[in-house]
Amino acid sequence: METLEIVKVENKAIEEKALVKNMKALVYHGPGKKSWEEKPKPTIIKSTDAVVKIFKTTICGTDLHIMKGDVPEVTDGRIIGHEGVGVIEEVGNAVSNFKKGDHVLISCITSCGKCDYCKKGMYSHCEDGGWILGHLIDGTQAEYVRIPHADNSLYPIPAGADEEALVMLSDILPTGFECGVLNGQVKPGDTVAIVGSGPIGLAALLTAQFYSPAEIIMIDPDDNRLNIAKTFGATKTINNSTEDVIEKIKSLTNGRGVDTAIEAVGIPATFELCTAIVGPGGHVANIGVHGKSVILHLETLWSQNITITTRLVDTVTTPMLLKTVQSKKLDPNKLITHRFRLDQVIEAYDTFANAAKEKALKVILTN
Amino acid sequence: METLEIVKVENKAIEEKALVKNMKALVYHGPGKKSWEEKPKPTIIKSTDAVVKIFKTTICGTDLHIMKGDVPEVTDGRIIGHEGVGVIEEVGNAVSNFKKGDHVLISCITSCGKCDYCKKGMYSHCEDGGWILGHLIDGTQAEYVRIPHADNSLYPIPAGADEEALVMLSDILPTGFECGVLNGQVKPGDTVAIVGSGPIGLAALLTAQFYSPAEIIMIDPDDNRLNIAKTFGATKTINNSTEDVIEKIKSLTNGRGVDTAIEAVGIPATFELCTAIVGPGGHVANIGVHGKSVILHLETLWSQNITITTRLVDTVTTPMLLKTVQSKKLDPNKLITHRFRLDQVIEAYDTFANAAKEKALKVILTN
Amino acid sequence: METLEIVKVENKAIEEKALVKNMKALVYHGPGKKSWEEKPKPTIIKSTDAVVKIFKTTICGTDLHIMKGDVPEVTDGRIIGHEGVGVIEEVGNAVSNFKKGDHVLISCITSCGKCDYCKKGMYSHCEDGGWILGHLIDGTQAEYVRIPHADNSLYPIPAGADEEALVMLSDILPTGFECGVLNGQVKPGDTVAIVGSGPIGLAALLTAQFYSPAEIIMIDPDDNRLNIAKTFGATKTINNSTEDVIEKIKSLTNGRGVDTAIEAVGIPATFELCTAIVGPGGHVANIGVHGKSVILHLETLWSQNITITTRLVDTVTTPMLLKTVQSKKLDPNKLITHRFRLDQVIEAYDTFANAAKEKALKVILTN
Amino acid sequence: METLEIVKVENKAIEEKALVKNMKALVYHGPGKKSWEEKPKPTIIKSTDAVVKIFKTTICGTDLHIMKGDVPEVTDGRIIGHEGVGVIEEVGNAVSNFKKGDHVLISCITSCGKCDYCKKGMYSHCEDGGWILGHLIDGTQAEYVRIPHADNSLYPIPAGADEEALVMLSDILPTGFECGVLNGQVKPGDTVAIVGSGPIGLAALLTAQFYSPAEIIMIDPDDNRLNIAKTFGATKTINNSTEDVIEKIKSLTNGRGVDTAIEAVGIPATFELCTAIVGPGGHVANIGVHGKSVILHLETLWSQNITITTRLVDTVTTPMLLKTVQSKKLDPNKLITHRFRLDQVIEAYDTFANAAKEKALKVILTN
Repeated sequence: METLEIVKVENKAIEEKALVKNMKALVYHGPGKKSWEEKPKPTIIKSTDAVVKIFKTTICGTDLHIMKGDVPEVTDGRIIGHEGVGVIEEVGNAVSNFKKGDHVLISCITSCGKCDYCKKGMYSHCEDGGWILGHLIDGTQAEYVRIPHADNSLYPIPAGADEEALVMLSDILPTGFECGVLNGQVKPGDTVAIVGSGPIGLAALLTAQFYSPAEIIMIDPDDNRLNIAKTFGATKTINNSTEDVIEKIKSLTNGRGVDTAIEAVGIPATFELCTAIVGPGGHVANIGVHGKSVILHLETLWSQNITITTRLVDTVTTPMLLKTVQSKKLDPNKLITHRFRLDQVIEAYDTFANAAKEKALKVILTN
Repeated sequence: METLEIVKVENKAIEEKALVKNMKALVYHGPGKKSWEEKPKPTIIKSTDAVVKIFKTTICGTDLHIMKGDVPEVTDGRIIGHEGVGVIEEVGNAVSNFKKGDHVLISCITSCGKCDYCKKGMYSHCEDGGWILGHLIDGTQAEYVRIPHADNSLYPIPAGADEEALVMLSDILPTGFECGVLNGQVKPGDTVAIVGSGPIGLAALLTAQFYSPAEIIMIDPDDNRLNIAKTFGATKTINNSTEDVIEKIKSLTNGRGVDTAIEAVGIPATFELCTAIVGPGGHVANIGVHGKSVILHLETLWSQNITITTRLVDTVTTPMLLKTVQSKKLDPNKLITHRFRLDQVIEAYDTFANAAKEKALKVILTN
Repeated sequence: METLEIVKVENKAIEEKALVKNMKALVYHGPGKKSWEEKPKPTIIKSTDAVVKIFKTTICGTDLHIMKGDVPEVTDGRIIGHEGVGVIEEVGNAVSNFKKGDHVLISCITSCGKCDYCKKGMYSHCEDGGWILGHLIDGTQAEYVRIPHADNSLYPIPAGADEEALVMLSDILPTGFECGVLNGQVKPGDTVAIVGSGPIGLAALLTAQFYSPAEIIMIDPDDNRLNIAKTFGATKTINNSTEDVIEKIKSLTNGRGVDTAIEAVGIPATFELCTAIVGPGGHVANIGVHGKSVILHLETLWSQNITITTRLVDTVTTPMLLKTVQSKKLDPNKLITHRFRLDQVIEAYDTFANAAKEKALKVILTN
Repeated sequence: METLEIVKVENKAIEEKALVKNMKALVYHGPGKKSWEEKPKPTIIKSTDAVVKIFKTTICGTDLHIMKGDVPEVTDGRIIGHEGVGVIEEVGNAVSNFKKGDHVLISCITSCGKCDYCKKGMYSHCEDGGWILGHLIDGTQAEYVRIPHADNSLYPIPAGADEEALVMLSDILPTGFECGVLNGQVKPGDTVAIVGSGPIGLAALLTAQFYSPAEIIMIDPDDNRLNIAKTFGATKTINNSTEDVIEKIKSLTNGRGVDTAIEAVGIPATFELCTAIVGPGGHVANIGVHGKSVILHLETLWSQNITITTRLVDTVTTPMLLKTVQSKKLDPNKLITHRFRLDQVIEAYDTFANAAKEKALKVILTN
């Protein structure tokens, strides 16, 4: 009897497999080529997987780099995107934290929860994860996405939460917070400089305020972005295309330099500026994704008791950030400037790629 | 009556001033020129000063740089030296921790104890101190030395201590420990690499063992120094003139890299080696005094969650190091290879300047 | 010639000594007895002293205990008070951070800056200081006060500061912050409970917000004080005379308990309540001055991974708190409810002793 | 075709289930009653389980408590034991770190790796684990044991390791280290007192030496145990049945008290002793399992800036401890005094229950 039942179940499974459903997704086809096209809807491959129906997603600066061909590990046919919120469609049998119908926040970092790095909280270097979504496996700019190690890579969305706002917690806010603010050891009363007032710099600005620094000085060549920074909590701004940043920082800090300098651009000039404005005992926290090496002036810095940090976001602070959003200590909505339907994703890329002209920070794509 | 007494006292002071005593000291007279000559014996200038009769002193690598003319702040006529132990000869009236006859350890760093930096424990940047001995004011390679801010810049020598050994606590051991071991966050079970097996690297090696790392890999081009490192506790050695350090480190760490890489040389190649062998989440702790800038490969390091630190020694751990010496957890004597009388200081410089040939680590000069 | 000058100077000093000036001060004369009376104006005794003319001072809960006779070290004739701001009247010759005319904040804790405890930042246990003002030496409820170790025990008031507000930085704000918030390790997103909504509990409430906890639950039996707490930033309040605190905390924290429980009363019941509401991994930070021992339920707590801390304020965070006030992250004025002239100090004590009835938090006395 | 295969596989599974094998195990049958008897061999229940064939196990002080009936959650029929090493017999399909034949160390703490507590490294409070082995589910004093959440609750044994020694890493060494040494914040140069020289106190003594304290003072009423402590690295011993501990500690610490006092007994007197001998700024780290509440003398301790911690071991340091054993920084064999065959477990309990008389520390049971 029992074995007959099993045969039936298996037959049903085989039939279902035949009826593979399709979905729409943004697909990379080599440098400069992308399309919104049909792809097979993802399915559970391992018992620790979940399939999530995307509700909202967004575009990251990294996605623009991928589209240019700067990230060679991304191959033709890959679905892009590593941010989003959605609803659980299906879970593997080893998934215990989630079930069909649960609303979830997708982390840009996949964490197995059981390798040495994950046990240390360094999910970015997970031996079976890290940044793989929209990079080494298919991503979130699609109607559905498969999330490996779902129990450790998804976060439950509290009832009543503003789900659109939470898309900012997939990547940009933990990145600004972990790589910039935590690594920069921002403390009450400190003077902090943030070089770069784009979305990542602004994410650092928003989350730096968790620790009540006395001054947050925003540095950028775009006055529009500096004005936004002021409304986000910057106490001072410096336009580095028209002002002498080093002199101005000196005058603002009695010649001492800042306690923390956060690099949120990713080019040699901005990193080197950070090391020029940091004071003795201070911290340079790099967030930017760099394509070139930089000059480190150890001939002066060797005696300055400084700390320089690098970090790929671990998203280990996502549960904490969720609490700060729920308690209104953090308002991620401020970062959203444009909204599109998911099937308008190509148009959304155009807007985001012309961020300065479009005065765009983050765009939301709704499925 | 009372005022007459004062007059007498003052007259006596004036007479004494006339009888200024001389002493012998090692004096810098511009690049390549030094002499052992007569100089006025130092006196109390400020109420927080002490005058110390030198009992033992030593020569630092920095002193060799000064003698070459590499440290332009050091001017003709300056008495060199920033290490030593001695006996209090006289104290200013605001000195309360010490009195005539006390045996003291001289810190290479002068600390006022009351500026912002001193209050944070960053004595190296003391606003009325820092590294000034044998640099901006007369130093310890002399029969007597004036120590400003004596209460915070001298340490009492416990009864029965091996005073010669404690000369190593003036600079080299706190430097190896604070800049290398503490900044490198060495922990039990860690794998540590130290690049440079000279006195400073060996000081880092000795003090790294306070934290019971699993492996300490010593890297140097001199086999003699590597052999010494083995007797000091190195678990592995790599001769970087004959071996491929990066490959060897990979094979020793399952391809992960080390937890902490300590730079104890001060040239671009050794710093860049440290950043090449450190693993994700690891620490590069710079000790070396650098004369040139270095290349920092942020194009790979940006995502490696590493920490790079620089530091001029604060000597804030001197009291703790004294305890470890007293309890036999640390044996500084190991670093002493040669002994001279203080009046043989010129000869001692010759030996120390030819350290590799002479198999010299630290030399002791006894007054 | 020179000696004659000295004679003149000395004569002048002797004359001045004869002309000892008096001042008015609040003097303790045994339990229940105090008077506003003439006392000799303080003078420089040691070269590290300063004499400060009091501009504003206040009354502390501890002063009430002294007046009742609860602090037996305070003897008949002692001038009370350990808080205040003022102007430097005179400094000893070893004082270098301050000069006559400087506006200063007086710390309730005297720090020599050169004993083992001071070097560790534990000024509360300074071997030649600690809490001595208005306790073991004369204090600040007077027209003038002598401050020992002035360089380390006074803080410069920035130009343009609201000096009245800064009186709150002498004791109450660093106490709430160091003993409650820092020791309690308050972090962004945390749930914090503060037991006791008096001035100290409110100081903890104000400074806990430096770290952006998600929830701050204030617990007190007085609804008026709970209402004030709400205006100061409490997100929830519980009246422990009418509500079941343990049950309510459970329901607010999904049964887990709070991350940090801050004890701001000083009696066994409130301490034991803190240990009952703290969750696994949480912190109990005691601020209260206790007169009796308490029961610690180790039979349940041994396995709960909790941390319990005690602390006499060190005022090591005063420079940082000054920065947060200057940058408007902290508004100490909120704590001031009543103002008197210094010569009305007896009346001010009456008001402060009836704090609940008078709806008093802190009173300001202006000289 | 494929479905037929499945039918065959399933039939085989059914047959195998019929052939359930038995094993021998130590079973608790209520207070005072235990027997070595036949029990069904455990099988995989969840896909995250592993079944381990026990190679070596041991008896814990907690097991003695269970046998007396002190741990009411342990019910009649339960297999006791929560320590051991063994070989993987079978793994569930979601287990990826281990496969049949792997040699493993069993942690006394089961960790799911995906609840809030596990993500914070507080495995002791895992929402689907914690201390359950030999407590809420069957344990390790048996020929086989089922280990839930195997990927996070087992550790691979390095090739060539002394497996017997590693049994000490299941519980006693991480307990002494995490609850005593880490929570006690032992640092180089510190003075540490450990109250209780039984196996747990000795585990704290061994692992405290990772941090090179200057002094480790062992306190116990049994001279034999104190003598053992001396051979394990104690620098001083105090017999608290014949000596005045408080006076002796005072004289050993210049009246200051110890930096860290570790409680390794679990009764009020020893905890209260710890709070009496700790100095200002010091740490009391409780390891003991307490059955009664204790008196905390806040009337004196409130101002002493002390930290008191409690902790159920998390075994989060097991990978690090494995490294220290492999690198010979830690020799767990020292703790093993007696060896038995697993089927002699009843006799082993008798020996361990009379530890003082038998001079027993830890016993090893070999299957």
